[in-house]
Amino acid sequence: EALGKQGWEILSETCELIPRELITIADAKRGDIGNTSKAYARAILDELDCDGVTVSPYLGYDSLEPFIEYQDKGIFILCRTSNQGSTDFQMLKTEYLGQKRFLYEVVADKASLWNRYENIGLVVGATQQEELKKLRLSYPKLPFLIPGIGAQGGDLKATIENGTNPNGELAIICASRGILYARSGSEFAQGAAEAAEQMRDAINHYRKRF
Amino acid sequence: EALGKQGWEILSETCELIPRELITIADAKRGDIGNTSKAYARAILDELDCDGVTVSPYLGYDSLEPFIEYQDKGIFILCRTSNQGSTDFQMLKTEYLGQKRFLYEVVADKASLWNRYENIGLVVGATQQEELKKLRLSYPKLPFLIPGIGAQGGDLKATIENGTNPNGELAIICASRGILYARSGSEFAQGAAEAAEQMRDAINHYRKRF
Repeated sequence: EALGKQGWEILSETCELIPRELITIADAKRGDIGNTSKAYARAILDELDCDGVTVSPYLGYDSLEPFIEYQDKGIFILCRTSNQGSTDFQMLKTEYLGQKRFLYEVVADKASLWNRYENIGLVVGATQQEELKKLRLSYPKLPFLIPGIGAQGGDLKATIENGTNPNGELAIICASRGILYARSGSEFAQGAAEAAEQMRDAINHYRKRF
Repeated sequence: EALGKQGWEILSETCELIPRELITIADAKRGDIGNTSKAYARAILDELDCDGVTVSPYLGYDSLEPFIEYQDKGIFILCRTSNQGSTDFQMLKTEYLGQKRFLYEVVADKASLWNRYENIGLVVGATQQEELKKLRLSYPKLPFLIPGIGAQGGDLKATIENGTNPNGELAIICASRGILYARSGSEFAQGAAEAAEQMRDAINHYRKRF
């Protein structure tokens, strides 16, 4: 968007260049009222044909439903994000079903209730290991999308220990800046490829214990 | 976005066609981590040169800061939205500064604390008159962006009574579908103009009591 209409073109071409056997998740963080959400869902899941998307929960169920209705796509709801300001609201104590729960826990619980097509996951930052562990114990079957490794400083080993299920699965660990900006200029592609390979090897190393 | 790169082109051309003396607010509902938020802010407030923008609070302060730093633009934070699902999270009771407050009230309070440049406002739906009234009493100086009139069924008279300050000001009442889809085909422009004029006259009628 920062690049205007060229931005969409580049995004669209990038999506086309990615081989179909690789999974694409658009980190769009959309959350709007029904008819607008429907248009966003169509743009990202139909036009760009991404396999998954991130969505923001503040507007509630009807803002997410147009995404969830794409039953063969993965819908990742922002739950406990990796950024510093995430404590402002996500860590508020709320009254929920007669219990005291953090707001992010209510989001996780509602997400699991809305999961009739089994296509919902949660976004949980690798900078929040305590909550990652707690959420994995509470929701053993939900896929987690885990940003915050690399540039943001999340620990990979702890993330795999806390974020995967007992088989070392259901955690999609993502790195953006650490890979995108590994090297610049003409070495960009080489640098990004190496950084991605290193991370893949590290992930598989830590997963060996499973 | 639903129209891909053409969508951005149309949006950009539309913004250029709007005379500068009219105020433009992009209902983008963005809320992302710092560097991405910065890019969104630049796209909407620099490139499109909109006068204001709506943002979503779930990620907290650092996700909104890049917008707030545009001191001469209006930054409207989603607070109590007009859609049905808005009760899912916005109406949760939370513990905040030793008091029990709804989540939307915490958002409003933080917004007022972050308002050092006096460029922050709240989005409060016209379908939520009770909360609109309560928020206006608590925050007499914050501008409110009020959607939900028209297609969503919010009452205009009550909105002006509850949403404006004692001088009948600080409420930006918006209607989208009721105006955009007033008539279709070749009568579109005429229909939209008439619907907008009717609404303007109605607003001014109800404001007469001030």
